[in-house]
Amino acid sequence: MIETTWSEAIKRKYPEPVVLVVSCDREGRPDVMPAGWSMVTSGIPPMLAVSIGHRRYTHKLIEETGEFVLVFPSKGMEGLINYTGSCSGRDVDKFSEYGIETLKSKYVRPPLIKDAVACFECKVRGKLVTGDHTVFAGEVVASYVSEKYRDRLYNFGNNRFRTIPGE
Amino acid sequence: MIETTWSEAIKRKYPEPVVLVVSCDREGRPDVMPAGWSMVTSGIPPMLAVSIGHRRYTHKLIEETGEFVLVFPSKGMEGLINYTGSCSGRDVDKFSEYGIETLKSKYVRPPLIKDAVACFECKVRGKLVTGDHTVFAGEVVASYVSEKYRDRLYNFGNNRFRTIPGE
Repeated sequence: MIETTWSEAIKRKYPEPVVLVVSCDREGRPDVMPAGWSMVTSGIPPMLAVSIGHRRYTHKLIEETGEFVLVFPSKGMEGLINYTGSCSGRDVDKFSEYGIETLKSKYVRPPLIKDAVACFECKVRGKLVTGDHTVFAGEVVASYVSEKYRDRLYNFGNNRFRTIPGE
Repeated sequence: MIETTWSEAIKRKYPEPVVLVVSCDREGRPDVMPAGWSMVTSGIPPMLAVSIGHRRYTHKLIEETGEFVLVFPSKGMEGLINYTGSCSGRDVDKFSEYGIETLKSKYVRPPLIKDAVACFECKVRGKLVTGDHTVFAGEVVASYVSEKYRDRLYNFGNNRFRTIPGE
C-alpha cells in the first residue's frame, strides 16, 4: 500500500451505483437529481440513506417536506441522469423539460419514475450533517420494481453509466 | 412498476460494493467485519459513512474509540470476507486466527489491511441512529491504494463476491 491523496484513492470506488432522488416543493412540484452517495441503512424498519450537497435544491426540498423517492435508474436513463445532474430545479421543471414519465406514489408526494428498476417511497426519520453534505435517512414506506428492467445503472467514472449483468 | 415487498425490491440493489471495517478496542486489539452499507458522504472535508448493526462488536468499538479504517477488499479476499462475517471479535481474534496481514496506520489505531485495493483512516465526526443500525460518518485523515490490486469486490447477492473489470 502506498499513501496517496483522497482524490486519487477514492477513484477506486468505481463502479459506483447511481440513484435518482425525487423530491417536491411545498406546492407539490417535483424535482429530481442523480446521486452517487446512497446506501441501505436499516433492515427493521427498512431505511435508505442518501447524501445531498448543502447547496442543492433537492436539499432544500427534502428539508422542507421530509419526503423523497429513491430510484434505481435503468438502462436507457443515461441521458436523463446527465440532464438532471446538469441543471437545477430552481431554474427549470426537469420533468416537463425532459419529458420524464412518472407514476403516482401512495404515501408521499414525490412521484415514482416510470420504467426505473426500482422505486422506494421514503419518509425522513433522521438526518446528519457531514461536511458539505447532509445524510437523509428515510424509512421506506412503499417499494416498487419494474417487470421490464432488472439491472440498475452504475457510474464507471466520469459519468460513464452502464449496467452490470448478474451471474 | 408493480408494488412489492421491501425484501423483494431491495434485491435489485446488487451488485453492491463491499467494504471491511477495521476497529480497535481500548487496549488497541483490532477487529474487522465486512459491511455492505457504506458510501462517500462529503467532499470537503473527505468523509465516508458506514452503517453498523447495533449488536455488532464493531459498533461497540467504534462507539468507544471514535476511529475506524474503511477498506476496499481485493480479489482473493472472498474467504476473508466470509470468515470475518461469520464470527464475532467478542469470541475470537480474527486477525491472528485467519492470518490477516496488516500495516500500521498513521493517525488512528486500527491497522490497514495489506493488499487491499484501498484503505482510508477515519475519525468519527458524527453519527445517526437509523432503525437497527448506526451511521458512523468518518473524516478521512489518510488514504492508501495498492500498487498491485485495482478492482474492489462486489456482492452479487448471497455473498457471491467478485470484481467488475473497468471499461
